[in-house]
Amino acid sequence: MKILIINGVNMDMLGTREPEKYGTMTLADLERDLKTCGSDLGVDVETFQSNSEGEIVEKIHKTDAQGIVINAGAYTHTSVAIADALSAVKTPAAEVHMTNIYSREDFRHKSYLAPVCVGQISGFGANSYKLGLKALVDFITKS
Amino acid sequence: MKILIINGVNMDMLGTREPEKYGTMTLADLERDLKTCGSDLGVDVETFQSNSEGEIVEKIHKTDAQGIVINAGAYTHTSVAIADALSAVKTPAAEVHMTNIYSREDFRHKSYLAPVCVGQISGFGANSYKLGLKALVDFITKS
Amino acid sequence: MKILIINGVNMDMLGTREPEKYGTMTLADLERDLKTCGSDLGVDVETFQSNSEGEIVEKIHKTDAQGIVINAGAYTHTSVAIADALSAVKTPAAEVHMTNIYSREDFRHKSYLAPVCVGQISGFGANSYKLGLKALVDFITKS
Amino acid sequence: MKILIINGVNMDMLGTREPEKYGTMTLADLERDLKTCGSDLGVDVETFQSNSEGEIVEKIHKTDAQGIVINAGAYTHTSVAIADALSAVKTPAAEVHMTNIYSREDFRHKSYLAPVCVGQISGFGANSYKLGLKALVDFITKS
Amino acid sequence: MKILIINGVNMDMLGTREPEKYGTMTLADLERDLKTCGSDLGVDVETFQSNSEGEIVEKIHKTDAQGIVINAGAYTHTSVAIADALSAVKTPAAEVHMTNIYSREDFRHKSYLAPVCVGQISGFGANSYKLGLKALVDFITKS
Amino acid sequence: MKILIINGVNMDMLGTREPEKYGTMTLADLERDLKTCGSDLGVDVETFQSNSEGEIVEKIHKTDAQGIVINAGAYTHTSVAIADALSAVKTPAAEVHMTNIYSREDFRHKSYLAPVCVGQISGFGANSYKLGLKALVDFITKS
Amino acid sequence: MKILIINGVNMDMLGTREPEKYGTMTLADLERDLKTCGSDLGVDVETFQSNSEGEIVEKIHKTDAQGIVINAGAYTHTSVAIADALSAVKTPAAEVHMTNIYSREDFRHKSYLAPVCVGQISGFGANSYKLGLKALVDFITKS
Amino acid sequence: MKILIINGVNMDMLGTREPEKYGTMTLADLERDLKTCGSDLGVDVETFQSNSEGEIVEKIHKTDAQGIVINAGAYTHTSVAIADALSAVKTPAAEVHMTNIYSREDFRHKSYLAPVCVGQISGFGANSYKLGLKALVDFITKS
Amino acid sequence: MKILIINGVNMDMLGTREPEKYGTMTLADLERDLKTCGSDLGVDVETFQSNSEGEIVEKIHKTDAQGIVINAGAYTHTSVAIADALSAVKTPAAEVHMTNIYSREDFRHKSYLAPVCVGQISGFGANSYKLGLKALVDFITKS
Amino acid sequence: MKILIINGVNMDMLGTREPEKYGTMTLADLERDLKTCGSDLGVDVETFQSNSEGEIVEKIHKTDAQGIVINAGAYTHTSVAIADALSAVKTPAAEVHMTNIYSREDFRHKSYLAPVCVGQISGFGANSYKLGLKALVDFITKS
Amino acid sequence: MKILIINGVNMDMLGTREPEKYGTMTLADLERDLKTCGSDLGVDVETFQSNSEGEIVEKIHKTDAQGIVINAGAYTHTSVAIADALSAVKTPAAEVHMTNIYSREDFRHKSYLAPVCVGQISGFGANSYKLGLKALVDFITKS
Amino acid sequence: MKILIINGVNMDMLGTREPEKYGTMTLADLERDLKTCGSDLGVDVETFQSNSEGEIVEKIHKTDAQGIVINAGAYTHTSVAIADALSAVKTPAAEVHMTNIYSREDFRHKSYLAPVCVGQISGFGANSYKLGLKALVDFITKS
Repeated sequence: MKILIINGVNMDMLGTREPEKYGTMTLADLERDLKTCGSDLGVDVETFQSNSEGEIVEKIHKTDAQGIVINAGAYTHTSVAIADALSAVKTPAAEVHMTNIYSREDFRHKSYLAPVCVGQISGFGANSYKLGLKALVDFITKS
Repeated sequence: MKILIINGVNMDMLGTREPEKYGTMTLADLERDLKTCGSDLGVDVETFQSNSEGEIVEKIHKTDAQGIVINAGAYTHTSVAIADALSAVKTPAAEVHMTNIYSREDFRHKSYLAPVCVGQISGFGANSYKLGLKALVDFITKS
Repeated sequence: MKILIINGVNMDMLGTREPEKYGTMTLADLERDLKTCGSDLGVDVETFQSNSEGEIVEKIHKTDAQGIVINAGAYTHTSVAIADALSAVKTPAAEVHMTNIYSREDFRHKSYLAPVCVGQISGFGANSYKLGLKALVDFITKS
Repeated sequence: MKILIINGVNMDMLGTREPEKYGTMTLADLERDLKTCGSDLGVDVETFQSNSEGEIVEKIHKTDAQGIVINAGAYTHTSVAIADALSAVKTPAAEVHMTNIYSREDFRHKSYLAPVCVGQISGFGANSYKLGLKALVDFITKS
Repeated sequence: MKILIINGVNMDMLGTREPEKYGTMTLADLERDLKTCGSDLGVDVETFQSNSEGEIVEKIHKTDAQGIVINAGAYTHTSVAIADALSAVKTPAAEVHMTNIYSREDFRHKSYLAPVCVGQISGFGANSYKLGLKALVDFITKS
Repeated sequence: MKILIINGVNMDMLGTREPEKYGTMTLADLERDLKTCGSDLGVDVETFQSNSEGEIVEKIHKTDAQGIVINAGAYTHTSVAIADALSAVKTPAAEVHMTNIYSREDFRHKSYLAPVCVGQISGFGANSYKLGLKALVDFITKS
Repeated sequence: MKILIINGVNMDMLGTREPEKYGTMTLADLERDLKTCGSDLGVDVETFQSNSEGEIVEKIHKTDAQGIVINAGAYTHTSVAIADALSAVKTPAAEVHMTNIYSREDFRHKSYLAPVCVGQISGFGANSYKLGLKALVDFITKS
Repeated sequence: MKILIINGVNMDMLGTREPEKYGTMTLADLERDLKTCGSDLGVDVETFQSNSEGEIVEKIHKTDAQGIVINAGAYTHTSVAIADALSAVKTPAAEVHMTNIYSREDFRHKSYLAPVCVGQISGFGANSYKLGLKALVDFITKS
Repeated sequence: MKILIINGVNMDMLGTREPEKYGTMTLADLERDLKTCGSDLGVDVETFQSNSEGEIVEKIHKTDAQGIVINAGAYTHTSVAIADALSAVKTPAAEVHMTNIYSREDFRHKSYLAPVCVGQISGFGANSYKLGLKALVDFITKS
Repeated sequence: MKILIINGVNMDMLGTREPEKYGTMTLADLERDLKTCGSDLGVDVETFQSNSEGEIVEKIHKTDAQGIVINAGAYTHTSVAIADALSAVKTPAAEVHMTNIYSREDFRHKSYLAPVCVGQISGFGANSYKLGLKALVDFITKS
Repeated sequence: MKILIINGVNMDMLGTREPEKYGTMTLADLERDLKTCGSDLGVDVETFQSNSEGEIVEKIHKTDAQGIVINAGAYTHTSVAIADALSAVKTPAAEVHMTNIYSREDFRHKSYLAPVCVGQISGFGANSYKLGLKALVDFITKS
Repeated sequence: MKILIINGVNMDMLGTREPEKYGTMTLADLERDLKTCGSDLGVDVETFQSNSEGEIVEKIHKTDAQGIVINAGAYTHTSVAIADALSAVKTPAAEVHMTNIYSREDFRHKSYLAPVCVGQISGFGANSYKLGLKALVDFITKS
C-alpha cells in the first residue's frame, strides 16, 4: 500500500518561521518522520509539497497511491479546485492541520476539502499527520 | 495518567440503531475497546455516557483525569455550557466524531467545543476515539 | 397499537399559567382527553412530560410505541438532540403545537424536529394533539 | 356551516404526476372525499382550484363560507397577495400541505400564509386536508 | 393629458374590509374622487383595478396615458414583472400607498417598483393618490 | 396652524452644488416658495436648516408647530436620535426627499425616520416638500 | 418531435420597447424565425406567450411537446409555481435569456427555473432561443 | 418578601476555577453574602444552583418568591426554555452577569432571557448580583 | 471621588414626554436625586446633558471625574465616536438605560458603548442610574 | 477567425473519471470534435487546457483569437483573476459548463466570469461547448 | 494651491492618550509638521479639527482649498453626511488613517468616505497624513 | 536597504489594456520609475511580477529584502495563501492599489492582505507605489 502525503502552500516554511505556532521541526524532518511512521504501519509513504494550487491538483490526478493525507494550508479555505480533484479521483483522503483551525480566524473554519475527505484531524501539531496516516491506513484496510 | 472518555447525547444507541451510519459496534463494545487501547498506551481509561447536558457539565467539573476525549453528539452544535465547562477546568480535551460532520447538514459544521479543545478528529468511525485517545496522551506527555 | 404522547419543557404549566395563550385545560385534563381520544381510535395512549432535554431523548430511545406525538415546547427550536433521537429510533412522529408558531417570534419559526417527523400541526390549541394523534394512527395504519 | 377548500397552483395535476410524492388520488377524488368528510362533520364543503394567484385572491374576497382550508401550492412561499386577501376577509383559515414542507428545499420552509391562518398542517398527504377541515370546523364551532 | 391610475391586488376590497387600516371609502368612491381631482388639474383620469399580476402588466403595456399612478398592493413587494413593464414602457409613474409601508412588516419595506418610478408616496391614506396624481402632472408638465 | 419645515445636513448647499441631481433652486428660494405655498393653504410656515444632528433634535423638542415636514438629508439613514425626537414629541411629521432614494445606493433605502412619520414622499424634487406640506395639513385637519 | 417555446411576462413587448437592450426584432419575428429554425432541425415548433404566471403553468401542464424552451421573463426570478410545473410534467426544458442576467441587478442572478431545467443559456440575444432549441433537440435525441 | 437567586450552569465552579475572570469568591461565599445583603434590604433570600436546564425551569415553576435574580450562565445564550418559564410564571426577574458579556465572544451578546426580564446588569463581578437584588426589591416595592 | 453622569440625546425631554415609557420624573429631578445619592455614597456627582454627539465626546475628553455613568440615549446604538472617546480616556464607565433595550426594536440591542464600559445596567427606570452610580463607586474603590 | 477554447482545472480528467457526471468522452475527443465543429463554422479552433489559474490568465493575455470559449472548472467560482484577465483583453467570451451548475452545491451558483462574458451556457454536456462556439461565432460576426 | 487637513472626532486627544496606538505626537505637533511638509511641496496647508459631524460638514462646504486630506476618526465608519458633503463640493480628497483599520474591529473596515475620495491611506502613523498630502498635491497637479 | 516590489496577477498588462482605468504607463515603465524613486530614497529596489499565486508566495518566502510593496491584483481579494506567506516571513509590507478599490465592486472591498500589512494605499494610480515605497522605507527606518 502507498500513501501520498501532500503539503500545500507555505508548508515549505515549516520549522523556519513562526515556531511559536508550528514548532521547530522542518518539512524535511516531518517527511522523514512520516516515512518512518509509514514503515511501522507497513506502508510506503510518498511525500509532496507545492505552493501551487494547480500542481497539487495535478499531483492528485496522477498519483497511484491508495490514500492521500493532505494539509493544503491556506488552499483549504479557498480551493474548490483541489476539492474537485480529490472527488474526481475518489482516492480516500484524510485532511490534516497542525493548528486548531477552529480557534483561529473565522475564514479558517471553512474547509472546502472536508466534505470530500474521509475525515479531518486538526490541532495536534506534527502528530496530526501521523494520526491521519494511521487513520487512513486503517480505513483502507477495513474498506 | 487517566483519560476520561465522554459520550454525549444519543451515543447510548450506538450499534443498535442506524448501523449504516454508525456501524454495529455497541457503546459497551466501544468502551471495552478503548480501555484495551488505553492499556496499550499505558493509561487508565474511564468511560462516561450521558444524555443530559447538565450531567456532562458536572462530570467535567468533577473528573480527576489528566485528559478528556469527548464526543458530545448533538450537544456539540448547541452547547455553550459544555464548552464553558471544558474551558473552566482547563483539562486538555480532544473532540471526536464518528461521522464526518462536514459532509452532513450545515448546522453540524459548527462546534462550540472545537475552539476550547486541543484538537478535533472527525469521520473515522470508532477509530476517531482511538486516534483522539492517542493524540491526547501524546499531547499531555509532551506538554 | 400504542402511541406515545410527549410533552416537553414548560408544558406541565398548562392551564395554570398564561390562559390567554394556552387556555385553562391542565396537562392532566389534556392527557385524560387524549387517552379517551385514543380509545375511540382503538389505540393505547401513553403520556409523558419532562422539562429535561435528556429525559425526553431517553424516553424516545426506550419507547415501544408505534408512533410518537410530540410537543417539545421550547426545545423544538433549540434541540438537535431530540431530533437526532427521533431520527435514530425511526418511530414515526407527529410534531404538534397549541399556538401558531408562525405568528410568534422569528426564532419560533424554526423547528429542528419538523424535518425528521412525518408532519407538523400547529395553531389549533389542544385540538392540535388530537389531530396529530389521528394523523399518526392513519399514517401508521396505511404504511 | 360552509367550508371552502382552495387548491392552488399545480394542484390540478394531483394524481397524474409525481405519484411518488403526491400519491395517485386525483384532485377530483380528493374533492369528492372532502365533501363526504364534510357531510360527516355536518358542514357543506365547496371546492375550488386555480393556478392563478389573482383568481385565488378573488375567490377569497367573494366567498360566503365560514372557514377556508387552503393549500396554495407554490404560492404559499411567494404570495403576499393571498395572505393579504385572507387577512382582509378575516374568515378563519387552515393552511394545509400534503408533503412535509420542512423536509424539502429551504425556500419551502417559509409560508406567507401561516401567520394569517389559524394554524398549519403539513406532511400527512391527502389526510392533511381532512385534518384541516376538522380542525377548522372545531375552531369555528368553539369560537 | 391622460393619467392612468392602477389599483392592484386586494384594492377592490377598499372600504368594505379592515376600515381601521384603510378607512370606509370604497374603491368606487376613491376613483370618483380622483377623476374630480383630475378635472381640477385639467387632466383626464382613467382608473383600472385588477387582482392579476399579468393583467396589470398588460394594462401598462397598452395604455396611452402620459403618466401612471400605481398602488400595486401586495405585488409591490414581490413583482419584478410589473417593475419590468413600467421600465419597458418608460411612461413616468408615481408609486402610492395608503398606509405607511415602513411601519409595517419588514417584507413590506421593499418595493420592486420604487426604483423604476419617478417617486413614491406612502402613508397619507386616500390622499396619497391625490398627491401622486398632482406630483405626476407637475412632473410631466415640467419635463 | 403652524408647520415647521426642517432641512437637514448638506441641504444648505441646495442649488449651488450638484444641480444635475438637485436643480438650481437654492435653499432660500425653496423656503420662500414653501412659505407662499403655506399661505395658500392658510398655514404659517417656519423654516429651519441645520447640519448638526443635535440641533435638529433640539429644534424638534422646542417647536410649537402642529406639524413637521422633514428632509433630514444623510441623517435619514443613520440617525436614531432624530427618530426618537420625533417619536417623543408626537407632532405629526411628513418625511420628504427630493431624489428617489430607492434608485440610489442600498444604504439610502433605509430610513430611521419613516416608521415614526405619518408618511414619506420621495423623488419629486422641490415638489416633494410642497406635497408633504399639503399632505400634512390635510392630515392634521382631518385628525 | 414537437418543441414548445414559451415566452413569459413582458416578452410581447419585444422589438417595440427598449431596443438598446433587446433589439428591434418583434416577438412575431422571433417566433417565425424559430419555426424556420425548427424546420431545419426537423422538429415542429409551437410558440406561446403569456403575461400570466397561471397561464404559463397551465400551458406546461397541457402541452404534448417533447421539450420546452422557456424564457419566463421576470417570473424566472420569482416563480416557484412555474418551476414546480416544469418539475411535475418532467418534459425536458431549456431556460433561455436574451440578456446576460449575471451582468444585471443582483435579484436577476437567481433563477427558480434553472435547477429543474436541463440547462440554461443567457446573453446571446435572439440567438439564445435558437441555441436552446438546438440544445434541447440534441438532448432529447440522445436520451 | 422572598427573592430567589438562581445560578445556572458552571456557576458551582465559582472561585475554584478561572479566578482571573471570576475572582476567588466561591458560590457558597457569594450566596452567604447575598443572604446578608437581603437581610439588609429586609427580604428573605433563597439561593439555588443547577447545571441542568430542566431543573432551572422547574425551580422557576415552583418558586413562591416575589422576584428572581438569575445568572443562567451559558444557558443565557441558548435557552428558550428558561425564558419561556420566566415568562410563564410572570414573577419579575433581574438578569445578572459577573462579566461584561458585551466584551466577550459574539454569541454571548445574545440573551434569550433579557426580553422577558425587568432588566439586565452585567460586568460588575459579584456586585452584579447585589445590584440586581436591590433593583428587583425596589421594582417590586414600587409596582 | 467625583463621578460624572452623562445624559445623551433626547434625555432633556425626560418626564415631559412619553411618561408611559419613562415616567414623570424630569431630568432636573433625576439629577437632583443622583446628587443626593452621591452624597450618601460619599462622592461628588457632576451632571451633564447634551443632544450633540460631539459635545458628549468633548465632555468625556475634559472631565476630571474618576468615573462616568452614561446613558447616551440613541447614540448608544450609532456612535463609534463616543465609544472611542471612552476608550481613549480610560476613565471607568457604567452604561445605563432606563428601559430594557432588549425588549425593544432590534437596532436597540446593539450598543457600541458596552464593550468599552465596565458594565451595563438596563431596564430599572431611574433606578438604573443609581445602581450604575453605586456599581461604579464600588468598582473604583476596589480597583 | 480564430476561437480559443480554454478548459480549466480538472478538465484534463474528462472521460476518465466520474463518467456518470461528465460522460466517457475524453478531453482529446472533445477538442477534436470542437475543431471539426469549428471547420463546419469556417473558423479556426485552438484548444488549451491548464490546471493553473496563472497559466489561464496568461493564455488569455497572449491569445490572438477573436473569441474565447471558456470552461474554467472550479476556478469559475473562485477566480477574480481570470475574470479580470477576460475583462482586460476585451476579447468576447462565452462561458460554458457541461453540468447544470444551478442544480449543484450553492457555491457553484456563483460565477465570477459570467458578468464579464457575453453569455453563459450550462447543462448540455459536451454540447455546451459546441453551442458556445456557435454562439460566439454568431456574436462576433454580427458585432 | 491650498490643502485643507481635517481631523475628526477624538483626534484632539492625539499624543495625550493611547500612545501605544497613536504615539506621543500631539495634534499641534502634527499640524505644525504638516504645514512644514506643505511648504516643502509648495502648497499652503490649513488645518482644522472638530469633534462635531456637523462642523466638519460645514468646513467642507466653506473651504476654498483645492484639496482635502481627511481623517474623520470614528465618523469614517458612520457618517453618510460627511461623505455627502465631500461628494457635493467635488474638491478632491484623500482619506487617511494613522492605524491600519483593517487589522482592527470589523466595523472599522467600512468607510463611508472611501468611495467618494480619490484614494485612501491607512496604517503608517503620522506619516499617513504626509503621504496623503503628497498624493493629493500630485493628483491635483496632474489633473 | 532592499525593498521588493511585487506585482501580482494581470499587472503585466499595465499600460497596454484598459488605459481609461490604469493609464498608459507600462509595467516596465513603472518598475523603472520605482527603481529611480528607490535611488532617491537611498534604497535598492527589486521588482517582481507573476500571474501565479504560488510563485508570489515563493518569492515572498525567498526574498532577502527588508520590506515588500505589494499590489497582488485580483489575488488581494481571494488569496489567504499570500497573506499567510507575508505573515510567516514577517517582513514589513505595504499593500498598494492603483485604483480606489472602495469605489468598485463589493468583492474588491475585502483584502486578505490588509490585516497582515503595515498599511494600505489605494487610488492614486502609479503614485500609490511610490507612496508605498516611501511609507515603507520610513517605517523600516523608524522601527
